[in-house]
Amino acid sequence: HGCWRIRRAEIDAAVQLLLKLKVDYKQMTGQDYKAGCPPSENLIVSNNGPAADDCDGEDLVDPWNVSASSTKGVDYDKLIVRFGSSKIDKELLERIEKVSGQRAHHFLRRGIFFSHRDMHQILDAYEKHKSFYLYTGRGPSSEAMHVGHLIPFIFTKWLQDVFDIPLVVQMTDDEKYLWKDLTLEECHRFTVENAKDIIACGFDVNKTFIFSDLDYMGASPQFYRNVVKVQKHVTFNQVKGIFGFTDSDCIGKISFPAIQAAPSFSSSFPQIFGGKKDVPCLIPCAIDQDPYFRMTRDVAPRIGLLKPALLHSTFFPALQGAQTKMSASDPNSSIFLTDTPKQIKNKINKHAFSGGKDTVEEHRKYGGNTEVDVSFLYLTFFLEDDEKLEKIKEDYTSGALLTGELKKILIETLQPMIAQHQERRKQVTDEMVQQFMTPRPLNYKF
Amino acid sequence: HGCWRIRRAEIDAAVQLLLKLKVDYKQMTGQDYKAGCPPSENLIVSNNGPAADDCDGEDLVDPWNVSASSTKGVDYDKLIVRFGSSKIDKELLERIEKVSGQRAHHFLRRGIFFSHRDMHQILDAYEKHKSFYLYTGRGPSSEAMHVGHLIPFIFTKWLQDVFDIPLVVQMTDDEKYLWKDLTLEECHRFTVENAKDIIACGFDVNKTFIFSDLDYMGASPQFYRNVVKVQKHVTFNQVKGIFGFTDSDCIGKISFPAIQAAPSFSSSFPQIFGGKKDVPCLIPCAIDQDPYFRMTRDVAPRIGLLKPALLHSTFFPALQGAQTKMSASDPNSSIFLTDTPKQIKNKINKHAFSGGKDTVEEHRKYGGNTEVDVSFLYLTFFLEDDEKLEKIKEDYTSGALLTGELKKILIETLQPMIAQHQERRKQVTDEMVQQFMTPRPLNYKF
Repeated sequence: HGCWRIRRAEIDAAVQLLLKLKVDYKQMTGQDYKAGCPPSENLIVSNNGPAADDCDGEDLVDPWNVSASSTKGVDYDKLIVRFGSSKIDKELLERIEKVSGQRAHHFLRRGIFFSHRDMHQILDAYEKHKSFYLYTGRGPSSEAMHVGHLIPFIFTKWLQDVFDIPLVVQMTDDEKYLWKDLTLEECHRFTVENAKDIIACGFDVNKTFIFSDLDYMGASPQFYRNVVKVQKHVTFNQVKGIFGFTDSDCIGKISFPAIQAAPSFSSSFPQIFGGKKDVPCLIPCAIDQDPYFRMTRDVAPRIGLLKPALLHSTFFPALQGAQTKMSASDPNSSIFLTDTPKQIKNKINKHAFSGGKDTVEEHRKYGGNTEVDVSFLYLTFFLEDDEKLEKIKEDYTSGALLTGELKKILIETLQPMIAQHQERRKQVTDEMVQQFMTPRPLNYKF
Repeated sequence: HGCWRIRRAEIDAAVQLLLKLKVDYKQMTGQDYKAGCPPSENLIVSNNGPAADDCDGEDLVDPWNVSASSTKGVDYDKLIVRFGSSKIDKELLERIEKVSGQRAHHFLRRGIFFSHRDMHQILDAYEKHKSFYLYTGRGPSSEAMHVGHLIPFIFTKWLQDVFDIPLVVQMTDDEKYLWKDLTLEECHRFTVENAKDIIACGFDVNKTFIFSDLDYMGASPQFYRNVVKVQKHVTFNQVKGIFGFTDSDCIGKISFPAIQAAPSFSSSFPQIFGGKKDVPCLIPCAIDQDPYFRMTRDVAPRIGLLKPALLHSTFFPALQGAQTKMSASDPNSSIFLTDTPKQIKNKINKHAFSGGKDTVEEHRKYGGNTEVDVSFLYLTFFLEDDEKLEKIKEDYTSGALLTGELKKILIETLQPMIAQHQERRKQVTDEMVQQFMTPRPLNYKF
């Protein structure tokens, strides 16, 4: 059925939109829009509809897609400009070391955490003995986590240790239910399994609250109140612009960003912060999650709450190369936390993209390229010793170190690391998970 | 910033939409669309954007707007056809009387509850000793409720009494926060105040659960799980079509319909139904709430849950006439539950639209029109005695009864009714409200 009044208004609106779009198009391309006739540039197609951000370069970065045109991966300097964040420079690094009294983590020293928002304000307040809290998260889309998934948790653990502050970890099982062909029960089970891997990173149960959205939303009226506050102050137009949602997306996806936003506000956790709504929040996360927090920072002052600060990491590259993130759905793109020493060895030897030359002779003569070599990139994440890493870089670049030898170093770094993780994970009982996931006060007074 | 690829896709989509709209427009009006030149018909403007339903007549009916072109009010027979519901006919009336063993409530006998969905299935199951439950609700937009707000509760109380079944009452304080310029605290306070008026209707605390969305969402993981299930299975396109949402609406409004849908499923109340997800639900409500439940019934089978059944009432007319609902924001359009006997008398004498003639002489000669006379319409709601009502109708129609005399009968009906309500409301303590609003088992085994 239909009504001419409505169709009329719709047509008027569509005409206005069309006129505006054509003007925009002309401004951007210098050409008039002509149906079926794109200007001469390559197309990047996103699975999730176009995001407003995949524009001024060839890199596509949003919470569901990361793809880079260069084998060196995403151009992170361009991303900082595009997202409007700030580079973690030498000055900030030194300040973090001064305030924390610790040498900066190698993720900071090596530019793996490379971008931030308002980190100076966090440090200003901390210097005046005003505490803050950490918020990070995980989308539990499968039982298996890979080594790349550990990056934010390894770093967050370090931040918690050096600053001695509470941490909340959001498991977005509702998000995974909305986006994937999974049942609620599956998503919740993945939450519990993934929580074990997170706990195995060494978090202190007295300082850490891990929560499933599916459980905590139904257990905390204050959390829901913050979700609704955000939902009132963000329009569909805005999430369309930020996340590339379309009219065909379900209303759950459309309103979900508010749920990822809410833990940025201390009032979402009255059991931890005693109802205080002004405890600053610092979010360590991969840069692809930034759109959620740009939205959050936009809304915060309008609902009388503090903007969260952020520390952004680069992406962890797939074995096949730095153009994409690792994917939990392709077993050969990743080293899983459940892999055996043999699987680790085989995957690296077989799949890790090499920056070396085709023959030993050429390699000895011209040397390898550490900028695209995945084994070397992985070592920048997991080999803590700066000197060793520098030596490896020199030797590989000069050709003294062969690809097989480089791979062997990586294998011998990852095998014990993952074996230790598996050992620690085995110690994590269901009761411990239950304890971490129970809403309760932590060992801090606010 | 922008990107030609996105603008291009947007333009293509806008062109397609425009072409489709123009075809629709031509089909509906028989005329080609011409900007700035509507066909010759009056415009009805909706505050909330166009709803897909206000089409084939002059009546506009959605959850936020009701307006009719005729002084007789909305054409309910047309509404049944448009909404695709069923008329409550003589056969259904008799069946309700047979199954319940009670004479039908005067709201049923007089066509105030006039439309239904699947009421026969509810009765089929009940005859086979399969119980069901009642779900109704209220949007607490202000402290003050008017007599029209009592209609669903008076009727629901009757249903609960004759069928002896549990009742859940949803207070959509989150909805009011999203739609109105109110704080969360105000909306929650209105919930508690309105709950007192609802309790004063005589509900049994052992059979009734009243809940605030803001509280219950944060107290029941099962409720949130059902909300997310609905949210996954409804697209923005669908809510746009059903509720007339636009891209400028906040994401909270867009996803809210799932929250009004969820109480239709018994699994949202594990404390009452012991986790059973197949207890049928019957929803008594005014017909303007039907869009929510059309959506719910569409989703239910796709998430493995039962469609709720419905009983629809007509609207309670404003004092000024049957063209609109009473409005809580215009004090002179309504008799409030807080009005004094004097206020009731003055409002009716001053504002109640009369179906009588301009002079006593004319009235005696031609008689009055009970179809548009608001005092008479109110008596059909509140004067239970069928014979008395019939006599009043005869006398008014013949001219024997004057408008002043008819108004006096209404005044003398409402004054004691509202005084009694006020007396019962005074007896409702904060502890009783607390009891009604605590998630708990009711006096039924499932």
